[in-house]
Amino acid sequence: MNRIGIDVGGTFIKGGIIDDKGNVLFSTKVQTFNDDEKISVVDNLYNLINYLIKKNKSISDTFLSFIGLGIPGIVNRKKGLAEFSGNLSWNNVPIIGLLKDKGITIPMKICNDSRSACIGEMMFGAGMQYKSAIVMTIGTGIGAGIVINGKLFEGNGDKGGEVGHTLLMMNGELCTCGRHGCFEAYASAKALIRYTKEEMLYNKNSLMWSHVYGNIENVDGTLAFTCAKLNDKSANKVINKYVKYLSEGILNICNCFRPEAIIIGGGISETGDFLFKKINEYIAKRDYGYKCTPKVNVIQAKLGNSAGMIGAAFMNEFLEDGENG
Amino acid sequence: MNRIGIDVGGTFIKGGIIDDKGNVLFSTKVQTFNDDEKISVVDNLYNLINYLIKKNKSISDTFLSFIGLGIPGIVNRKKGLAEFSGNLSWNNVPIIGLLKDKGITIPMKICNDSRSACIGEMMFGAGMQYKSAIVMTIGTGIGAGIVINGKLFEGNGDKGGEVGHTLLMMNGELCTCGRHGCFEAYASAKALIRYTKEEMLYNKNSLMWSHVYGNIENVDGTLAFTCAKLNDKSANKVINKYVKYLSEGILNICNCFRPEAIIIGGGISETGDFLFKKINEYIAKRDYGYKCTPKVNVIQAKLGNSAGMIGAAFMNEFLEDGENG
Repeated sequence: MNRIGIDVGGTFIKGGIIDDKGNVLFSTKVQTFNDDEKISVVDNLYNLINYLIKKNKSISDTFLSFIGLGIPGIVNRKKGLAEFSGNLSWNNVPIIGLLKDKGITIPMKICNDSRSACIGEMMFGAGMQYKSAIVMTIGTGIGAGIVINGKLFEGNGDKGGEVGHTLLMMNGELCTCGRHGCFEAYASAKALIRYTKEEMLYNKNSLMWSHVYGNIENVDGTLAFTCAKLNDKSANKVINKYVKYLSEGILNICNCFRPEAIIIGGGISETGDFLFKKINEYIAKRDYGYKCTPKVNVIQAKLGNSAGMIGAAFMNEFLEDGENG
Repeated sequence: MNRIGIDVGGTFIKGGIIDDKGNVLFSTKVQTFNDDEKISVVDNLYNLINYLIKKNKSISDTFLSFIGLGIPGIVNRKKGLAEFSGNLSWNNVPIIGLLKDKGITIPMKICNDSRSACIGEMMFGAGMQYKSAIVMTIGTGIGAGIVINGKLFEGNGDKGGEVGHTLLMMNGELCTCGRHGCFEAYASAKALIRYTKEEMLYNKNSLMWSHVYGNIENVDGTLAFTCAKLNDKSANKVINKYVKYLSEGILNICNCFRPEAIIIGGGISETGDFLFKKINEYIAKRDYGYKCTPKVNVIQAKLGNSAGMIGAAFMNEFLEDGENG
């Protein structure tokens, strides 16, 4: 049996046909928002799913058993309802019901997109060897999926696991959630871009300027890493600042959950060993109880951009409704 | 069958004979540290247990089936080892082995004292109606026991659940754990006493001075509450500051674990509704996702000082080794 996995992002909706072993047989993406405002996100989703259903017939003689959708924001899994998504401008959108009304008959489920990425990594990626791990996706925000003894931990009403919205700095930076000083506000890719721009404005001689052709609007989350590897002093200053915030948030997660591993995905994680060596050195020196506590391996995710799509396709197996409450 | 529950504190060791329904049939306490330094904490523990074994024979014709010990600090449950306890000056003390060597033959187990208090409250106190709750004990530090779907969550090697050692303020106050800015450093009873003294030194006209007979060394964790209830302006300032720190830490726990309830024990909790009304008002306004997230009830513990002792007596039933890892 094949499955369809959908990863809904703020810019693109990615969709793929996935086989029983987690292999991506085919994948494509469409824009989340159409230029013609009459065509809604739900229309785009419906069209993409329909396209993938037809595609499955042409590339495979295998039956499609399931469609899973990873949605950014707050999701009510049992009701198939996207309760709140800032990125999609959704408030209480009964997404599963709407797709059924449009004629999709294959069984469908939704979950939060960080959790579908977590399922992907735990089943087929960096988490395969662990029973208890946390998969953190660092992008515009910081999302997480928490697996304890092989089961996704979601908290009451599936609303726990929001580690991005625990504090680093009370009364600090305003966070998208309304609190001030959250981990997300200091360690997201957006925050890293902010630190990079601040440092560039402070030091006009930084190598970083030439890498963006003198235009600060070209700064992205990888710039400081690229230039730090080239020994640019300013870039290293930015990275050390960022690593400190990221690692302090990771220490909080270690002390709360003490997983076997923390797996980090998202664009920043692709800087690889350069980043992970720094994080692991930082936390080794500051972990609660020091030598008494089992080491938490902070490692890079393996499935890259596909984790959410692959995980979404398997959410019906990984999430047993009623057992994860 | 009766059980013995022992709660080892930095000043006193409390011990009790508990029946199968959690009733305390008899309890007593001894000093943790003897004036004669030749008599160790282990000796005091042994003598107390022996006394309770004899006492059980005199007050009841019921067999003693189990002895549970709640120990402050980092415990290796499976090995019966107190790995680290600052309060007891213990480093890798094989406490169960030592008590067996001295001749105790009744089955014994240890766990961290916050977790034994948690077991007590969940089985016989404020947590009886909840499947997922966190029991926080606020004293010199902030300890916690975390129950998810009826089971104690402990993390890898039993070293998770250290919510007192997550940040409120990066680079902030030095914490006993070595980090700077932990929840415990801002919301323990010790921190409240610090805020109280600071305010008293700032305002010599505060009612608080007369309540300690002019001697600031008499300040304890209840003084500001007592005087705030009497409308002393300075005392209210202290309480509002303390409630803010405590509530921000509680919000972190809500966002991570999203339990049904957070149950607070320890001396400060005994100020009752006055405190809990303020906390619940604070978090209602700042919870992640606001109206989307299920309410977390922040409530007072019920068993007072006996929670740890009662819970210790039942740890063998509540903790299933190998299932909580």
